[in-house]
Amino acid sequence: MSTLNKMIIVVILLVLAGCAPQVDTEKERAAILQTDKEWVTAASEGRDLERIISFWADDAAIYPPGLPSVVGKEAIRQFIGKSLQTPGFSVWWETNQVTVSKGGDLAYATGKNRFTFSDAAGKTVTANGKAITVWRKEPSGSWKCVIDIWNEDR
Amino acid sequence: MSTLNKMIIVVILLVLAGCAPQVDTEKERAAILQTDKEWVTAASEGRDLERIISFWADDAAIYPPGLPSVVGKEAIRQFIGKSLQTPGFSVWWETNQVTVSKGGDLAYATGKNRFTFSDAAGKTVTANGKAITVWRKEPSGSWKCVIDIWNEDR
Repeated sequence: MSTLNKMIIVVILLVLAGCAPQVDTEKERAAILQTDKEWVTAASEGRDLERIISFWADDAAIYPPGLPSVVGKEAIRQFIGKSLQTPGFSVWWETNQVTVSKGGDLAYATGKNRFTFSDAAGKTVTANGKAITVWRKEPSGSWKCVIDIWNEDR
Repeated sequence: MSTLNKMIIVVILLVLAGCAPQVDTEKERAAILQTDKEWVTAASEGRDLERIISFWADDAAIYPPGLPSVVGKEAIRQFIGKSLQTPGFSVWWETNQVTVSKGGDLAYATGKNRFTFSDAAGKTVTANGKAITVWRKEPSGSWKCVIDIWNEDR
Protein backbone atom coordinates (compact mmCIF):
# COMPACT_ATOMS: atom_id res chain seq x y z
CA MET A 1 0.00 0.00 0.00
CA SER A 2 1.34 3.41 -0.91
CA THR A 3 1.90 6.11 1.70
CA LEU A 4 -0.86 8.12 0.03
CA ASN A 5 -3.38 5.29 0.40
CA LYS A 6 -2.41 4.78 4.04
CA MET A 7 -2.89 8.48 4.74
CA ILE A 8 -6.33 8.47 3.09
CA ILE A 9 -7.40 5.49 5.23
CA VAL A 10 -6.21 7.21 8.41
CA VAL A 11 -8.12 10.36 7.47
CA ILE A 12 -11.30 8.35 6.75
CA LEU A 13 -11.03 6.64 10.16
CA LEU A 14 -10.56 10.00 11.89
CA VAL A 15 -13.61 11.42 10.13
CA LEU A 16 -15.73 8.32 10.88
CA ALA A 17 -14.80 8.58 14.58
CA GLY A 18 -16.56 11.96 14.61
CA CYS A 19 -19.80 10.95 12.98
CA ALA A 20 -22.51 8.34 13.26
CA PRO A 21 -23.33 5.99 10.36
CA GLN A 22 -26.58 6.41 8.44
CA VAL A 23 -29.27 4.01 9.58
CA ASP A 24 -31.99 2.14 7.67
CA THR A 25 -34.89 3.51 9.73
CA GLU A 26 -37.41 1.53 7.66
CA LYS A 27 -35.71 -1.69 8.77
CA GLU A 28 -35.70 -0.52 12.41
CA ARG A 29 -39.39 0.37 12.14
CA ALA A 30 -40.14 -3.15 10.91
CA ALA A 31 -38.05 -4.61 13.77
CA ILE A 32 -40.09 -2.67 16.34
CA LEU A 33 -43.39 -3.75 14.78
CA GLN A 34 -42.24 -7.39 14.81
CA THR A 35 -41.08 -7.12 18.46
CA ASP A 36 -44.37 -5.47 19.39
CA LYS A 37 -46.29 -8.28 17.67
CA GLU A 38 -44.44 -10.90 19.71
CA TRP A 39 -45.08 -8.84 22.83
CA VAL A 40 -48.84 -8.53 22.37
CA THR A 41 -49.03 -12.27 21.62
CA ALA A 42 -47.28 -13.10 24.92
CA ALA A 43 -49.29 -10.49 26.84
CA SER A 44 -52.68 -11.52 25.48
CA GLU A 45 -51.91 -15.19 26.22
CA GLY A 46 -51.15 -13.96 29.75
CA ARG A 47 -49.22 -17.04 30.86
CA ASP A 48 -45.48 -16.28 30.88
CA LEU A 49 -44.76 -13.31 33.19
CA GLU A 50 -40.99 -13.28 32.56
CA ARG A 51 -41.52 -13.36 28.80
CA ILE A 52 -44.06 -10.53 28.97
CA ILE A 53 -41.85 -8.25 31.07
CA SER A 54 -38.75 -8.99 28.93
CA PHE A 55 -40.02 -6.44 26.37
CA TRP A 56 -39.52 -3.56 28.81
CA ALA A 57 -36.03 -2.12 29.42
CA ASP A 58 -34.64 -2.54 32.96
CA ASP A 59 -35.23 1.16 33.66
CA ALA A 60 -38.63 1.34 31.92
CA ALA A 61 -41.67 3.05 33.38
CA ILE A 62 -45.38 2.33 32.97
CA TYR A 63 -47.83 5.20 33.51
CA PRO A 64 -51.19 3.48 34.05
CA PRO A 65 -54.31 5.68 34.24
CA GLY A 66 -55.56 6.37 37.76
CA LEU A 67 -52.51 4.76 39.37
CA PRO A 68 -49.01 5.90 40.34
CA SER A 69 -46.11 5.38 37.88
CA VAL A 70 -44.53 1.92 37.89
CA VAL A 71 -40.76 2.45 37.57
CA GLY A 72 -38.10 -0.21 36.97
CA LYS A 73 -38.18 -3.90 36.09
CA GLU A 74 -38.93 -5.21 39.60
CA ALA A 75 -41.90 -2.85 40.07
CA ILE A 76 -43.10 -3.83 36.56
CA ARG A 77 -42.80 -7.54 37.45
CA GLN A 78 -45.01 -7.03 40.50
CA PHE A 79 -47.50 -4.81 38.65
CA ILE A 80 -47.91 -7.20 35.69
CA GLY A 81 -47.91 -10.26 37.98
CA LYS A 82 -50.81 -8.74 39.92
CA SER A 83 -52.65 -7.81 36.69
CA LEU A 84 -52.39 -11.41 35.40
CA GLN A 85 -53.94 -12.64 38.66
CA THR A 86 -56.90 -10.22 38.39
CA PRO A 87 -60.10 -12.25 37.75
CA GLY A 88 -61.10 -12.09 34.09
CA PHE A 89 -58.01 -10.06 33.14
CA SER A 90 -56.96 -9.83 29.53
CA VAL A 91 -55.09 -7.28 27.44
CA TRP A 92 -54.84 -6.62 23.72
CA TRP A 93 -53.28 -3.79 21.75
CA GLU A 94 -52.55 -2.67 18.22
CA THR A 95 -49.70 -0.39 17.20
CA ASN A 96 -50.54 1.94 14.30
CA GLN A 97 -47.60 4.18 13.67
CA VAL A 98 -43.91 3.90 14.56
CA THR A 99 -41.48 6.81 14.10
CA VAL A 100 -37.74 6.04 14.39
CA SER A 101 -35.05 8.66 15.06
CA LYS A 102 -32.61 9.06 12.19
CA GLY A 103 -29.80 7.50 14.29
CA GLY A 104 -31.95 4.40 14.89
CA ASP A 105 -31.60 4.63 18.68
CA LEU A 106 -35.02 5.95 19.75
CA ALA A 107 -38.58 5.55 18.50
CA TYR A 108 -42.15 6.22 19.52
CA ALA A 109 -45.34 4.46 18.58
CA THR A 110 -49.04 5.25 18.75
CA GLY A 111 -51.71 2.65 19.23
CA LYS A 112 -54.91 1.57 20.88
CA ASN A 113 -55.50 -1.03 23.54
CA ARG A 114 -58.24 -2.93 25.34
CA PHE A 115 -58.28 -4.27 28.88
CA THR A 116 -60.95 -6.58 30.21
CA PHE A 117 -61.47 -7.74 33.77
CA SER A 118 -64.34 -8.93 35.98
CA ASP A 119 -66.03 -6.53 38.37
CA ALA A 120 -67.12 -7.48 41.92
CA ALA A 121 -70.30 -9.07 40.54
CA GLY A 122 -68.29 -11.16 38.06
CA LYS A 123 -69.42 -9.09 35.09
CA THR A 124 -66.84 -8.41 32.36
CA VAL A 125 -65.70 -4.79 32.16
CA THR A 126 -63.96 -3.55 29.00
CA ALA A 127 -61.76 -0.43 28.86
CA ASN A 128 -60.65 0.89 25.46
CA GLY A 129 -57.64 3.15 25.40
CA LYS A 130 -55.21 5.08 23.23
CA ALA A 131 -51.52 4.61 23.93
CA ILE A 132 -48.01 5.91 23.35
CA THR A 133 -44.92 3.75 23.75
CA VAL A 134 -41.32 4.96 23.58
CA TRP A 135 -38.69 2.47 22.42
CA ARG A 136 -34.91 2.41 22.81
CA LYS A 137 -32.42 0.25 20.94
CA GLU A 138 -30.28 -1.56 23.50
CA PRO A 139 -26.54 -2.30 23.07
CA SER A 140 -27.63 -5.91 22.37
CA GLY A 141 -29.36 -4.63 19.21
CA SER A 142 -32.89 -5.40 20.41
CA TRP A 143 -35.56 -2.74 20.87
CA LYS A 144 -37.05 -2.38 24.36
CA CYS A 145 -39.98 -0.33 25.60
CA VAL A 146 -38.83 2.45 27.96
CA ILE A 147 -42.14 4.27 28.47
CA ASP A 148 -45.67 3.07 28.24
CA ILE A 149 -48.66 5.36 28.80
CA TRP A 150 -52.31 5.16 27.87
CA ASN A 151 -55.67 6.65 28.79
CA GLU A 152 -59.34 6.00 28.20
CA ASP A 153 -60.72 6.61 24.77
CA ARG A 154 -64.24 7.79 24.12
CA MET B 1 -2.76 23.07 -2.33
CA SER B 2 -1.01 19.84 -3.26
CA THR B 3 -2.76 17.07 -5.21
CA LEU B 4 -2.50 14.90 -2.09
CA ASN B 5 -4.32 17.46 0.07
CA LYS B 6 -7.03 17.90 -2.56
CA MET B 7 -7.57 14.14 -2.70
CA ILE B 8 -7.83 13.91 1.08
CA ILE B 9 -10.47 16.67 1.12
CA VAL B 10 -12.50 14.89 -1.60
CA VAL B 11 -12.35 11.64 0.37
CA ILE B 12 -13.46 13.39 3.58
CA LEU B 13 -16.43 14.93 1.76
CA LEU B 14 -17.42 11.53 0.31
CA VAL B 15 -17.27 9.93 3.77
CA LEU B 16 -19.22 12.77 5.37
CA ALA B 17 -21.95 12.38 2.75
CA GLY B 18 -22.57 8.89 4.13
CA CYS B 19 -22.78 9.73 7.80
CA ALA B 20 -24.52 12.10 10.17
CA PRO B 21 -22.56 14.51 12.39
CA GLN B 22 -22.34 13.94 16.13
CA VAL B 23 -24.75 16.09 18.10
CA ASP B 24 -24.45 17.83 21.46
CA THR B 25 -27.50 16.14 23.02
CA GLU B 26 -26.98 18.01 26.30
CA LYS B 27 -27.42 21.30 24.43
CA GLU B 28 -30.55 19.96 22.68
CA ARG B 29 -31.94 18.80 26.03
CA ALA B 30 -31.46 22.31 27.43
CA ALA B 31 -33.14 23.79 24.34
CA ILE B 32 -36.22 21.57 24.87
CA LEU B 33 -36.42 22.47 28.57
CA GLN B 34 -36.20 26.17 27.71
CA THR B 35 -38.88 25.81 24.99
CA ASP B 36 -41.09 23.87 27.40
CA LYS B 37 -40.65 26.60 30.04
CA GLU B 38 -41.81 29.26 27.56
CA TRP B 39 -44.72 27.00 26.60
CA VAL B 40 -45.99 26.43 30.14
CA THR B 41 -45.71 30.17 30.82
CA ALA B 42 -47.90 30.97 27.79
CA ALA B 43 -50.32 28.11 28.57
CA SER B 44 -50.75 28.94 32.25
CA GLU B 45 -51.34 32.61 31.41
CA GLY B 46 -54.03 31.29 29.04
CA ARG B 47 -54.35 34.46 26.99
CA ASP B 48 -52.62 34.00 23.63
CA LEU B 49 -54.10 31.00 21.78
CA GLU B 50 -51.83 31.31 18.72
CA ARG B 51 -48.73 31.53 20.92
CA ILE B 52 -49.82 28.48 22.96
CA ILE B 53 -50.49 26.29 19.92
CA SER B 54 -47.25 27.38 18.19
CA PHE B 55 -45.36 24.87 20.37
CA TRP B 56 -47.07 21.93 18.66
CA ALA B 57 -45.91 20.72 15.22
CA ASP B 58 -48.43 21.08 12.38
CA ASP B 59 -49.03 17.31 12.40
CA ALA B 60 -49.04 16.97 16.20
CA ALA B 61 -51.60 14.95 18.15
CA ILE B 62 -52.98 15.41 21.66
CA TYR B 63 -54.33 12.31 23.45
CA PRO B 64 -56.48 13.73 26.26
CA PRO B 65 -57.90 11.29 28.84
CA GLY B 66 -61.53 10.34 28.31
CA LEU B 67 -61.70 12.11 24.94
CA PRO B 68 -60.87 11.21 21.32
CA SER B 69 -57.42 12.07 19.91
CA VAL B 70 -56.97 15.64 18.66
CA VAL B 71 -54.93 15.42 15.45
CA GLY B 72 -53.40 18.30 13.48
CA LYS B 73 -52.93 22.01 14.14
CA GLU B 74 -56.47 23.09 13.25
CA ALA B 75 -58.07 20.48 15.57
CA ILE B 76 -55.59 21.54 18.28
CA ARG B 77 -56.52 25.21 17.80
CA GLN B 78 -60.19 24.38 18.32
CA PHE B 79 -59.52 22.06 21.28
CA ILE B 80 -57.27 24.54 23.10
CA GLY B 81 -59.52 27.48 22.21
CA LYS B 82 -62.47 25.65 23.81
CA SER B 83 -60.36 24.74 26.88
CA LEU B 84 -59.38 28.39 27.42
CA GLN B 85 -63.08 29.33 27.35
CA THR B 86 -64.01 26.71 29.99
CA PRO B 87 -65.05 28.51 33.22
CA GLY B 88 -62.25 28.45 35.79
CA PHE B 89 -59.85 26.72 33.38
CA SER B 90 -56.15 26.74 34.10
CA VAL B 91 -53.26 24.43 33.28
CA TRP B 92 -49.80 24.00 34.76
CA TRP B 93 -47.10 21.40 34.14
CA GLU B 94 -43.55 20.51 35.06
CA THR B 95 -41.17 18.50 32.90
CA ASN B 96 -38.81 16.27 34.86
CA GLN B 97 -36.74 14.29 32.43
CA VAL B 98 -35.86 14.82 28.77
CA THR B 99 -34.11 12.15 26.68
CA VAL B 100 -32.74 13.18 23.26
CA SER B 101 -31.89 10.75 20.44
CA LYS B 102 -28.21 10.68 19.58
CA GLY B 103 -28.90 12.35 16.22
CA GLY B 104 -30.65 15.26 17.98
CA ASP B 105 -33.84 14.87 15.91
CA LEU B 106 -36.25 13.23 18.38
CA ALA B 107 -36.79 13.41 22.14
CA TYR B 108 -39.26 12.43 24.80
CA ALA B 109 -40.02 13.97 28.16
CA THR B 110 -41.79 12.87 31.32
CA GLY B 111 -43.65 15.23 33.58
CA LYS B 112 -46.65 15.97 35.72
CA ASN B 113 -49.48 18.40 35.14
CA ARG B 114 -52.47 19.98 36.83
CA PHE B 115 -55.73 21.14 35.30
CA THR B 116 -58.32 23.16 37.16
CA PHE B 117 -61.80 24.12 36.06
CA SER B 118 -65.16 24.94 37.63
CA ASP B 119 -67.87 22.31 37.92
CA ALA B 120 -71.58 23.00 37.26
CA ALA B 121 -71.94 24.40 40.80
CA GLY B 122 -68.99 26.78 40.27
CA LYS B 123 -66.72 24.76 42.55
CA THR B 124 -63.06 24.41 41.49
CA VAL B 125 -62.08 20.91 40.41
CA THR B 126 -58.38 19.97 40.24
CA ALA B 127 -57.00 17.03 38.21
CA ASN B 128 -53.37 15.98 38.74
CA GLY B 129 -51.77 13.96 35.98
CA LYS B 130 -48.59 12.35 34.74
CA ALA B 131 -47.57 13.06 31.17
CA ILE B 132 -45.36 12.08 28.26
CA THR B 133 -44.47 14.45 25.45
CA VAL B 134 -42.58 13.55 22.26
CA TRP B 135 -40.55 16.30 20.57
CA ARG B 136 -39.19 16.62 17.05
CA LYS B 137 -36.56 19.05 15.81
CA GLU B 138 -37.98 20.89 12.83
CA PRO B 139 -35.97 21.96 9.75
CA SER B 140 -36.12 25.50 11.22
CA GLY B 141 -34.01 24.24 14.14
CA SER B 142 -36.73 24.67 16.74
CA TRP B 143 -38.16 21.79 18.77
CA LYS B 144 -41.91 21.15 18.47
CA CYS B 145 -44.18 18.81 20.40
CA VAL B 146 -45.53 16.03 18.16
CA ILE B 147 -47.36 13.92 20.77
CA ASP B 148 -48.86 14.86 24.07
CA ILE B 149 -50.53 12.31 26.35
CA TRP B 150 -51.38 12.28 30.05
CA ASN B 151 -53.60 10.49 32.52
CA GLU B 152 -54.81 10.88 36.09
CA ASP B 153 -52.34 10.31 38.85
CA ARG B 154 -53.25 8.87 42.21
